[in-house]
Amino acid sequence: MQPLKALFLNTSLKSSEEPSHTEVFMNDVQVHYNKLGVESEIVRLADYKIALGVQEDMGGEDEWPKIFEKVKAADILIIGTPLWLGEKSSLATQTIERLYGSSGKTNDKGQAVFYNKVGATVITGNEDGAKHAAASLLYGLSHIGFLVPPNVDAYWVGEAGPGKSYMDAGRDNEFSKKAIRRLAYNTYHLAGMLKNTPIPAEGNTLA
Amino acid sequence: MQPLKALFLNTSLKSSEEPSHTEVFMNDVQVHYNKLGVESEIVRLADYKIALGVQEDMGGEDEWPKIFEKVKAADILIIGTPLWLGEKSSLATQTIERLYGSSGKTNDKGQAVFYNKVGATVITGNEDGAKHAAASLLYGLSHIGFLVPPNVDAYWVGEAGPGKSYMDAGRDNEFSKKAIRRLAYNTYHLAGMLKNTPIPAEGNTLA
Amino acid sequence: MQPLKALFLNTSLKSSEEPSHTEVFMNDVQVHYNKLGVESEIVRLADYKIALGVQEDMGGEDEWPKIFEKVKAADILIIGTPLWLGEKSSLATQTIERLYGSSGKTNDKGQAVFYNKVGATVITGNEDGAKHAAASLLYGLSHIGFLVPPNVDAYWVGEAGPGKSYMDAGRDNEFSKKAIRRLAYNTYHLAGMLKNTPIPAEGNTLA
Amino acid sequence: MQPLKALFLNTSLKSSEEPSHTEVFMNDVQVHYNKLGVESEIVRLADYKIALGVQEDMGGEDEWPKIFEKVKAADILIIGTPLWLGEKSSLATQTIERLYGSSGKTNDKGQAVFYNKVGATVITGNEDGAKHAAASLLYGLSHIGFLVPPNVDAYWVGEAGPGKSYMDAGRDNEFSKKAIRRLAYNTYHLAGMLKNTPIPAEGNTLA
Repeated sequence: MQPLKALFLNTSLKSSEEPSHTEVFMNDVQVHYNKLGVESEIVRLADYKIALGVQEDMGGEDEWPKIFEKVKAADILIIGTPLWLGEKSSLATQTIERLYGSSGKTNDKGQAVFYNKVGATVITGNEDGAKHAAASLLYGLSHIGFLVPPNVDAYWVGEAGPGKSYMDAGRDNEFSKKAIRRLAYNTYHLAGMLKNTPIPAEGNTLA
Repeated sequence: MQPLKALFLNTSLKSSEEPSHTEVFMNDVQVHYNKLGVESEIVRLADYKIALGVQEDMGGEDEWPKIFEKVKAADILIIGTPLWLGEKSSLATQTIERLYGSSGKTNDKGQAVFYNKVGATVITGNEDGAKHAAASLLYGLSHIGFLVPPNVDAYWVGEAGPGKSYMDAGRDNEFSKKAIRRLAYNTYHLAGMLKNTPIPAEGNTLA
Repeated sequence: MQPLKALFLNTSLKSSEEPSHTEVFMNDVQVHYNKLGVESEIVRLADYKIALGVQEDMGGEDEWPKIFEKVKAADILIIGTPLWLGEKSSLATQTIERLYGSSGKTNDKGQAVFYNKVGATVITGNEDGAKHAAASLLYGLSHIGFLVPPNVDAYWVGEAGPGKSYMDAGRDNEFSKKAIRRLAYNTYHLAGMLKNTPIPAEGNTLA
Repeated sequence: MQPLKALFLNTSLKSSEEPSHTEVFMNDVQVHYNKLGVESEIVRLADYKIALGVQEDMGGEDEWPKIFEKVKAADILIIGTPLWLGEKSSLATQTIERLYGSSGKTNDKGQAVFYNKVGATVITGNEDGAKHAAASLLYGLSHIGFLVPPNVDAYWVGEAGPGKSYMDAGRDNEFSKKAIRRLAYNTYHLAGMLKNTPIPAEGNTLA
């Protein structure tokens, strides 16, 4: 069997010229993927021109189609987001909008194109908002066809108020480490299962 | 293989002396389950005395332990809720609290006791709030160990403002019917897959 | 002018036989109210039998009508909640349901009965979920007629994962202390303004 | 007294070359503002280059500073959003991010710069998600200093599933019309009250 492919979409508001706590968190997931033989790639969405809208290709300078090719090739999609005012980032919201724009597209069996892929989310913030952002992102993915394995919301947030971010806080919160491990293993387990045994195209085609 | 078992928890605020739109919606899922050979049971939670708290058994008159036995025996758990002010019901919130109270419990492999079960949600309301309630409920289930198959949020809501409820509106919304079918088939497909091929206890045990 | 009256509804899942972090947080608000001459009362909802439903009085043993009398007499209503799985408690959800059950009731000018009252929220949790719970509760209050002053969401949560609760953590987070002060003063300022200058009954009556 | 000024920020994903249901809904609010002597302006954010980030001015081609001048001059701020997958738009999320970027800025009394302004929201969608989006937007505004009057969430959504949008559905839903009227009058009433009687700078300054 070909190695499983995981795609991380980092929706930090900062382009890759700046360090991203969310990206470092993704690196901590990649440590497990490397051991498991899962190939992974991190894409910093703020480096791309992503047009507003809900078409698969908005034309002009829109670079979403490049990203979407990577999504189609991936077995595992992990959306990563920072938190602002307790919410996922605007780029995370836009990611769901753009994915949703292809929700009418089908695979060769007539199911939504996202079937047999697994979705997950990683979140970092100074404080508060991770579960709310996770619920929104995992729901969005599930609603358009991704499978959501158990325990695929891994996050770190600090105590209420301004304070350290993930890297500054030392990357060694036990709770977050366990969540990272479970996310890595469960996306691996379930993506493997779906590769061996795809969801039958019975009762779930779009037509 | 033994037939799959589905448990519907109806979190309507009304006891079973009164008709429930959410329950009728569940009946529409059961039509598919009957064809597929899935055994199903609907429990109206408002008929039980469910104590406040987050212990597995709150003692006294608490009847949650009875419900929890059914949860443990089920392959598929479907939480159904009405909408009040755009939110899932207080009984739905309490259902998540009580399930969460057993989230430290393990199966014989050391995974959370909810592993290898699939979760889903059905929602009815006069208007607005279904996706928000679905996101919250599916996230809660996923966070404690349930697998969330694609397209397992089936709902009906009417146009903005007071108006007809599900039964009065005729139970024949095409969008809701497709969502019901997909929910039934995908919970069936995935519960079957997990029965044949449980999630390996690697990287995801609680210890 | 008569002193302003503030009512705290504590939706902890524990009855008053047990200490509540949320209640201690309320006490920290009361310190300011005492200085400002605001009379306040804390009601532990878990001490009461509150029936499921959305009628003003559900009959039988329902003790909500007693609570509702206090709501009607209050100038300021503060709903306090703990966090479970990143959500407000089931009792907090029920509080909104029961308040909503009186949303068709009017004052003597024909506005919703909650007009000219101000709403606020206080939240404590081990970790994560405060802003999400605050958004839900403040929206619920605003939607049925309460005015929401600026900065009336005061909370404390700890770092991601299991850990200390508010009291154990020492009650001295600077961010939370400022939020408590602003909540106290702004509910006081705005409740006073509405007492002196009620919202004109123009364009906002229920009829 | 100078006329009150209302600013509508339309976060439709479409630029003003295309019609926007949300904008038409805003027009329905403007009918009331015209009668009340409130000056209003609608800004279509998709017409501007708004940079990602949480600084007041992100430099380069960032056009947010132009928008922010309008926000500072307004007594009433109304964020309007369409719904995609049950959520506010990415531009609405970005609007909150950019406003939040100025949340440390003060007025001449030391309060947050948004004090003595009132916030509101209008929402249109094919179906479902309005209350969730309203809760998020009103909370964001309240958390950074806006006052939220009662009943300032006006929306229209249709029955579950794909279907008509606001204009096609005829703009004559009674519930939405009442909500529009209440939103217009209550933002007018409260903005007027705050102009006459600003919130005292006591207990609520940022320092």
